[in-house]
Amino acid sequence: MLNIALIGVGRIGKMHARNIVDHPQCNLTYVYDIKEDFSSEVAKFSNAKIAKSPEEAINDNVVDAVFIASATNTHVDYIILAAKAGKAVFCEKPIDLDIEKVNYCYKQIKVLNVPIQIGFNRRFDYSHRKLKLSKDNGEIGNLEMIVITSRDPAPPNIDYLKISGGFFRDCTIHDFDLSRFFLGNDPIVAISAYGSQLVSDEIKSINDHDTAMFILRSQKGVLCHINNSRRAVYGYDQRVEIFGSKGMLISTNQTPSSVEKYNASGTNIKEPIYNFFIERYDQAYKNQLNDFVNTVIDKQQPSVTFEDGRKALIIANAAYKAFETGTSTKVIL
Amino acid sequence: MLNIALIGVGRIGKMHARNIVDHPQCNLTYVYDIKEDFSSEVAKFSNAKIAKSPEEAINDNVVDAVFIASATNTHVDYIILAAKAGKAVFCEKPIDLDIEKVNYCYKQIKVLNVPIQIGFNRRFDYSHRKLKLSKDNGEIGNLEMIVITSRDPAPPNIDYLKISGGFFRDCTIHDFDLSRFFLGNDPIVAISAYGSQLVSDEIKSINDHDTAMFILRSQKGVLCHINNSRRAVYGYDQRVEIFGSKGMLISTNQTPSSVEKYNASGTNIKEPIYNFFIERYDQAYKNQLNDFVNTVIDKQQPSVTFEDGRKALIIANAAYKAFETGTSTKVIL
Amino acid sequence: MLNIALIGVGRIGKMHARNIVDHPQCNLTYVYDIKEDFSSEVAKFSNAKIAKSPEEAINDNVVDAVFIASATNTHVDYIILAAKAGKAVFCEKPIDLDIEKVNYCYKQIKVLNVPIQIGFNRRFDYSHRKLKLSKDNGEIGNLEMIVITSRDPAPPNIDYLKISGGFFRDCTIHDFDLSRFFLGNDPIVAISAYGSQLVSDEIKSINDHDTAMFILRSQKGVLCHINNSRRAVYGYDQRVEIFGSKGMLISTNQTPSSVEKYNASGTNIKEPIYNFFIERYDQAYKNQLNDFVNTVIDKQQPSVTFEDGRKALIIANAAYKAFETGTSTKVIL
Amino acid sequence: MLNIALIGVGRIGKMHARNIVDHPQCNLTYVYDIKEDFSSEVAKFSNAKIAKSPEEAINDNVVDAVFIASATNTHVDYIILAAKAGKAVFCEKPIDLDIEKVNYCYKQIKVLNVPIQIGFNRRFDYSHRKLKLSKDNGEIGNLEMIVITSRDPAPPNIDYLKISGGFFRDCTIHDFDLSRFFLGNDPIVAISAYGSQLVSDEIKSINDHDTAMFILRSQKGVLCHINNSRRAVYGYDQRVEIFGSKGMLISTNQTPSSVEKYNASGTNIKEPIYNFFIERYDQAYKNQLNDFVNTVIDKQQPSVTFEDGRKALIIANAAYKAFETGTSTKVIL
Repeated sequence: MLNIALIGVGRIGKMHARNIVDHPQCNLTYVYDIKEDFSSEVAKFSNAKIAKSPEEAINDNVVDAVFIASATNTHVDYIILAAKAGKAVFCEKPIDLDIEKVNYCYKQIKVLNVPIQIGFNRRFDYSHRKLKLSKDNGEIGNLEMIVITSRDPAPPNIDYLKISGGFFRDCTIHDFDLSRFFLGNDPIVAISAYGSQLVSDEIKSINDHDTAMFILRSQKGVLCHINNSRRAVYGYDQRVEIFGSKGMLISTNQTPSSVEKYNASGTNIKEPIYNFFIERYDQAYKNQLNDFVNTVIDKQQPSVTFEDGRKALIIANAAYKAFETGTSTKVIL
Repeated sequence: MLNIALIGVGRIGKMHARNIVDHPQCNLTYVYDIKEDFSSEVAKFSNAKIAKSPEEAINDNVVDAVFIASATNTHVDYIILAAKAGKAVFCEKPIDLDIEKVNYCYKQIKVLNVPIQIGFNRRFDYSHRKLKLSKDNGEIGNLEMIVITSRDPAPPNIDYLKISGGFFRDCTIHDFDLSRFFLGNDPIVAISAYGSQLVSDEIKSINDHDTAMFILRSQKGVLCHINNSRRAVYGYDQRVEIFGSKGMLISTNQTPSSVEKYNASGTNIKEPIYNFFIERYDQAYKNQLNDFVNTVIDKQQPSVTFEDGRKALIIANAAYKAFETGTSTKVIL
Repeated sequence: MLNIALIGVGRIGKMHARNIVDHPQCNLTYVYDIKEDFSSEVAKFSNAKIAKSPEEAINDNVVDAVFIASATNTHVDYIILAAKAGKAVFCEKPIDLDIEKVNYCYKQIKVLNVPIQIGFNRRFDYSHRKLKLSKDNGEIGNLEMIVITSRDPAPPNIDYLKISGGFFRDCTIHDFDLSRFFLGNDPIVAISAYGSQLVSDEIKSINDHDTAMFILRSQKGVLCHINNSRRAVYGYDQRVEIFGSKGMLISTNQTPSSVEKYNASGTNIKEPIYNFFIERYDQAYKNQLNDFVNTVIDKQQPSVTFEDGRKALIIANAAYKAFETGTSTKVIL
Repeated sequence: MLNIALIGVGRIGKMHARNIVDHPQCNLTYVYDIKEDFSSEVAKFSNAKIAKSPEEAINDNVVDAVFIASATNTHVDYIILAAKAGKAVFCEKPIDLDIEKVNYCYKQIKVLNVPIQIGFNRRFDYSHRKLKLSKDNGEIGNLEMIVITSRDPAPPNIDYLKISGGFFRDCTIHDFDLSRFFLGNDPIVAISAYGSQLVSDEIKSINDHDTAMFILRSQKGVLCHINNSRRAVYGYDQRVEIFGSKGMLISTNQTPSSVEKYNASGTNIKEPIYNFFIERYDQAYKNQLNDFVNTVIDKQQPSVTFEDGRKALIIANAAYKAFETGTSTKVIL
């Protein structure tokens, strides 16, 4: 059994709480949030104690692992706190919006040598993962192109947008990581980035983007395209296509049911796809937790490392530089 | 070149006229219809002479083949006339609604030994045909089940309905023939039939059916299901499924475009399927003509014979008996 | 909380055990099986006591509900036992293979008035259920046809086959119930049945069927087709199509992933569909349990009643009579 | 009737010849090719005279229109010749590989004011066109993103590659034009380009690309992605996706049949898609001819103009500059 302290129980933290409670090898020992009513809500459906401070939860000897799902700018502090306490760490993406802080964090924790996993949940999606395994098994021959479509159903509120770190660091970071996942040991070396303001005046008012396209190039010459939007009226559009010398694999969108409708206005009509990440990646989040639990218990390396989190941020930063300078920008990982 | 006399140029005859005109090995030499304006319309887009009588067209020495697309109750007379004149014959389905007349016709023409092909166009559909070829190549192993869905977009007018011979002889006859096509040399031996009056009061008023289901059994025990309706609001529903020991093949519906629509109300939305037989089986009608032309020119046996037409009618008659008696009725082919 | 005694923990019983353990409002209090090692296996992943006899489990005052997943011929005894003990009952389908025993059971329990639900799990499948709800909301207008395709991936072993009650009572009974589910208060009045022996010599040797087709007719004239096979090499084929005056809805097959493969031999290639009922109806079994738990706790009527179980068996018996006599047989529900 | 002189009857010219012969309002009057056996082959299935020189064909008074399908570097000469003779012109893409020659051509012909249409056939594809019409009707709201996938089944031979003008000018030029088609009057203003050599050593040896990705930006901020390959083992991959504020439309790939295969290795298996442009765009080429014929006869403006051909080349040139400089390059149309 793994005793877990969970820090931060907003929308995503609450989902983690439920998964931890349901996992046969986990106890949710502590829950902490700066909003006490958030903690109380989780305490209702679990046996977790409500911690008065993150320290209380993290430093208790009974705790084996710390789950960090708090605001992004608190991640680094809690990672260091947990690592110093010798606890295994799971931290939501991104590690931080500031690469200097990420590098500082890395320096602090590397000697402590605790397992630390970053929350790139999409790597654990059954269909995306099947693409990766099939590619690794040679099913598409040599990888030549990757096309990732990733569009949110609707923009978040303006308060979140202001602290999000910008569209590329908040959203595309998932797709940068996914590109690295499929490329394996072939590093990304260059990137071009385009951003537009087409969806929302609010987003424009804070000078962020809501529509974006990217091309990444790997060392071996594999080309990767990513496109993002803050609003897709038909749901949370999540597609990955990998193309190679022997064929193509597509991980396409999913609908809650397998119902098809035929009427005077159309045929083959399916429901809107899953609305957002909680629904679409429900199983992926559970697989991710399970993977974390197993690697910690088996004392193996986490499958998504601190370095993966750091590299995704470096790519996002290079994307901003590419956008600002209008050049194909070198990525130094 | 094959010189063709075309008898009957209503909706389907006019389509045959266009196909004959476009075919590189055919001349449309004569056209005849009891409505002279129908003939005139065809003469406008072809070099065909308007015949004053069917005899004028059929008996002219220059004519090689006779295409019969007139009212069903005239088919037998024209077949006999053409056969006596030594002409190759193409005749629309059904040969006649009365099996006695069909048998009489057969007696009259068999010694004359002219090629005669019956218009079961669906056998020439590229997708249905691919199922047949794949089955013959062993792709699904032993055939065990056939499921045919065949639904018209909307009922014909009451005048046509009155002389149609009834739903089973007018519509299902195509599906009876298609079942025989897939079964090959394994004859149908029994049938059950259900008819309902759910679509139209007009159809009910003349005591015909508009909704029907059938099960046929072959000598080897293959089971075949057919379902029909006079009205499918989403278009002309034409599906065939064949199932066997090694897998299943489905010839599914077709839409004019390959466009898919995604919006707030649904995803994967395709257009309504092809509206009716002229559109859906456009290529099949051309393939059918081509097959007729080639077998006549090459002096080979027609691929769909008089006997095929006769057997489909025998099955339709057995279906009526099955419906009336509420029994699984023997089919003696 | 509902304290449950589970009788019978073979393949399906073990699945129920896991669902009960995972359900937040259930305790698995007792487990009983004639094979003690089966019980032990369940005890390992739950807190259930291993009962020495069904009576011990059923009669303990702490038990609120009895789950019956034992061999079919024991169902009636346990139902009566549980009902006499005043416990709510969930019983796997079929109630029994002998309608006399079912009727006897009914007489014994009706005055006891305990809630009893029969395990027609397919009614709880999200997609099938969506069809039912959409139909009830008028989305397809008047219901006119139902087409149910239900094919197992592979035949069970001969020992099971011998006591299965025959293909129609063992397999098709699910589809008979599903027809009734979609028809609502329009009763089935007639049935025709065809069975074949095409799949397995073993099945032939015990004179059972492995391939079957049915047509059912409702009082209002709705026609329903069912086709079954004991072997579909591409997986557990589970499709439902409902057709009406305003359109059609299809609940089509499901694959574990949303991956599509494109290579030199084909395009749009999906994985084989879910292999069998445990995988395909995983969510349906959980929904079924949840529905049972809620109706018992809320003291409401079960959604699938003893009478539903009895009627499905009456239809299966009528199907056998239809097959043996070669007639369209009246169904008296 | 339009009397047409056809210059150049290689693979694509021969296809044009057949379409012209079949068109009810066209005569194929002359055919010319530097290889006389090519002309002879066309003469066999048409009434066309074999011209001894392009001038003989172009200058004959009986000729109304000139179809140019000869080698790219001859296009400009024939356009000028035809324009001086006062003939309507249809010219295959690209006009020329050298923008200076194109500009020179334009200067020569503008005062002559003959109708001239450039062969961007994809604009006439029924499905792509449906996207354009639906977008213009507001079905997806404001256009925000375009994603074009365009991959050939296999590279051409090395002789062709050497004179092709490079991957971006030979292949992507179609997609540049298609982007402009969907953008309507919102001009492309910037482009980034990535090329790789992954498919063929032969292509590498002449320093051309076989794999490429592009991002284009319109004045209004619409983002457009194009990806290309010289080799897709599953056929000629032709997809267009347009995304906007109210939804998304996809013109997806097409297979010759509507057959789906289910077996132990996969489900929903379709045939490989159409192999190459002659098959995939068969109907588009006919629609294109028909459009040309109608606009010439009706004395209207061609739907795809010389200027469209010139602009596509300007974008291709900008793409090369973007690739070589590694910058997002301004497009001045």
